[in-house]
Amino acid sequence: MFIAMNRIMCQPDYVEKFEHMFRTRAGEVDKMPGFISVKTLRPLKEDQPYIIMSFWEERSNFDDWLKSEAFKLGHRRGFDDVAKARAEGRQSPLTSSMEQYEVISE
Amino acid sequence: MFIAMNRIMCQPDYVEKFEHMFRTRAGEVDKMPGFISVKTLRPLKEDQPYIIMSFWEERSNFDDWLKSEAFKLGHRRGFDDVAKARAEGRQSPLTSSMEQYEVISE
Repeated sequence: MFIAMNRIMCQPDYVEKFEHMFRTRAGEVDKMPGFISVKTLRPLKEDQPYIIMSFWEERSNFDDWLKSEAFKLGHRRGFDDVAKARAEGRQSPLTSSMEQYEVISE
Repeated sequence: MFIAMNRIMCQPDYVEKFEHMFRTRAGEVDKMPGFISVKTLRPLKEDQPYIIMSFWEERSNFDDWLKSEAFKLGHRRGFDDVAKARAEGRQSPLTSSMEQYEVISE
């Protein structure tokens, strides 16, 4: 099993919208081949990131998702807010870093 | 659902033993109230940590596990290696940091 973790630091004034976006996600990822599940994780400490964690049969399934039209469409709301902040010279509401793992024991 | 992630940087010469310990774990945690599952995650990039990720019904279930005799017993092999390295003035084979999350959407 392959796991992707998108670690996202979220500006305090963007938290409400951020959580709303994941509660109302389009569900397109659920239709991708090899998709198992996805979870939105809220940190218990303030200085730690949110994590969008998705489980896949294989890494190639996740790579296909990143390259898909559905991925771009599903992330448009967040991408638009980041692009707008950049264009206006403001700090981005979100910064993210990706980590990828394979499950070696359970 | 509550998720604990123990992020563990592992010295290269300790990787084999580290992975072996989790493949041959005692299974004591599986008996704890509120335990759902545990996974050992190997990073795809060298500079990223291993993660021991456990899923629980509630945070208090995980806290009870940390305080249990079974926890101490189950981690003895790793704890002994860390203590030995410290006593001998060597770099620890493992360094870890804990992150805790609640699942807010799936």
